[in-house]
Amino acid sequence: MIIDTLFEAVKEKGHVCVGLDTDFGYIPHPFACHYDSVAEAVFAFNREIIEATIDVAACYKVQIAYYEALGIEGLRAYKQTLAFLRERGAIVIADVKRGDIAKTAEMYAQAHFTGDFECNFMTINPYMGLDSLTPYLPYLKNHNKGLFVLVRTSNEGAKDIENLFIDTGNREHVPAKDAGILPAPREKVYQRVGHLIQKMGAPFTGTCGYSSVGGVMGCTHAEEAIETRELLNSTFFLIPGYGAQGGTAQDIALYLKNGNGGVVNASRSILLAYKKIENGEIHFAEAAREETTRMRDNIRNAIRVSSF
Amino acid sequence: MIIDTLFEAVKEKGHVCVGLDTDFGYIPHPFACHYDSVAEAVFAFNREIIEATIDVAACYKVQIAYYEALGIEGLRAYKQTLAFLRERGAIVIADVKRGDIAKTAEMYAQAHFTGDFECNFMTINPYMGLDSLTPYLPYLKNHNKGLFVLVRTSNEGAKDIENLFIDTGNREHVPAKDAGILPAPREKVYQRVGHLIQKMGAPFTGTCGYSSVGGVMGCTHAEEAIETRELLNSTFFLIPGYGAQGGTAQDIALYLKNGNGGVVNASRSILLAYKKIENGEIHFAEAAREETTRMRDNIRNAIRVSSF
Repeated sequence: MIIDTLFEAVKEKGHVCVGLDTDFGYIPHPFACHYDSVAEAVFAFNREIIEATIDVAACYKVQIAYYEALGIEGLRAYKQTLAFLRERGAIVIADVKRGDIAKTAEMYAQAHFTGDFECNFMTINPYMGLDSLTPYLPYLKNHNKGLFVLVRTSNEGAKDIENLFIDTGNREHVPAKDAGILPAPREKVYQRVGHLIQKMGAPFTGTCGYSSVGGVMGCTHAEEAIETRELLNSTFFLIPGYGAQGGTAQDIALYLKNGNGGVVNASRSILLAYKKIENGEIHFAEAAREETTRMRDNIRNAIRVSSF
Repeated sequence: MIIDTLFEAVKEKGHVCVGLDTDFGYIPHPFACHYDSVAEAVFAFNREIIEATIDVAACYKVQIAYYEALGIEGLRAYKQTLAFLRERGAIVIADVKRGDIAKTAEMYAQAHFTGDFECNFMTINPYMGLDSLTPYLPYLKNHNKGLFVLVRTSNEGAKDIENLFIDTGNREHVPAKDAGILPAPREKVYQRVGHLIQKMGAPFTGTCGYSSVGGVMGCTHAEEAIETRELLNSTFFLIPGYGAQGGTAQDIALYLKNGNGGVVNASRSILLAYKKIENGEIHFAEAAREETTRMRDNIRNAIRVSSF
């Protein structure tokens, strides 16, 4: 199971998932100007970042939107980036957030689990329901692939769907006003989604105790983190929202279990770390490595503190 | 507003949206064997289908998953298909169901509203909330683009999220058992989504009375159709679920208003129409045209009957 490989990578290298959301504008000019096209520069920049972080990053998340935006050439850079990551033995999460059903979902599985765009894990949007996940499952068992399904994101708009409470229609346990009877526990949409994917993922559980059907779990507040970790105790989390989006290492620690069970994505803070140092434009790869290491250590320290 | 162009196309050419979900396996062998690669054959087949249906189809929906599955070459066929549709003056819905936020969503907008993959409308998945839509809005006003946001799909899995009832926490109007007081009206997730996108789309309303922010509205049962059309009276619908998935022309008519306000997608029934006729492999394009015309007339007749 690929989830065991990721679990081991976290043990060995820490929790950082380096996000290759590579905008051309991020690439230092002295480096970019050596390349004939935007797409070539993007791939070359990625290669430097990967080489510099390979032993301190658990995995890489490649956000396809940045490559799609450059059309065919961009997708060629995307393909090259994935191939280079494979060559270096890295674990790759393709952040594609595809979501469709039946034969269309089969096509997406084929697109991202085989061929030019082959990755280890892909992210999935569950809005259309569980049958938008089933076409990927054969790849989990037979081709050592995994999923991260969107559960809870940390953006403002999470309130519109993910955070809505579900009305089960069960009014039996709802008390008349002031009768003092406790209402039935309320469940949010994202909690339902989490519950459903954990159940669906159970047959794909690795020896590490987590399933190859993971969940994207944005880093929000402590109370939610604790509740979520309890509810989804065999679901591995891909956690965005660290740093720029407000989550701290202490928050992250709450989404983990015995110091494992999740990877934490950071992209801009790593790719643009060079902007904070002198002569950074020349030493952008070293800056990325330092930032990755710093983040890794911060999270490890927070875990150590929280386990006392 | 692009929605006015689509509205006029429906008036003139009927309601059929031809779905170019072109699997290589659909292409008749005597035709496919003239091409050196799968991707070339796919584009050539699409070109024939487009030429044969251009005056009887309101628009075309290209399902990117089928092209993504073929990697870079497939996406080249996708690009060629979109370019050919533009050249022929057709309205193109890119069925990409992308869904992300902030800069990533900006990248998807750039990817599908400009450059190699430029379309007129793109489909969007709203799971992450309304802020996954805002990055597209500048293109609606300034670049004559439109969206179809997933609202309600007709698959079994719709029950998992889209069809859940929302608990607003308002218990005030809920009666004690048998007290005979009517409960507050219940709202489903997809109804909330529909309501939100209609509100968001209001500033992008064309002279036809519909907004360039449309909704994907799977064809289900009559009661739901009537309720939905009432709730979303200025939302143009992209309606899948006709034919193979069980929806009839009579059902479709209920999702329309004065015979307009929606297009109905069909793909396999059109692309594979040749399988039902003699020597179909040779006359696949004519078969596609006949099926498109038949479907158009069925829907027009159902509208005529329902308006009596």
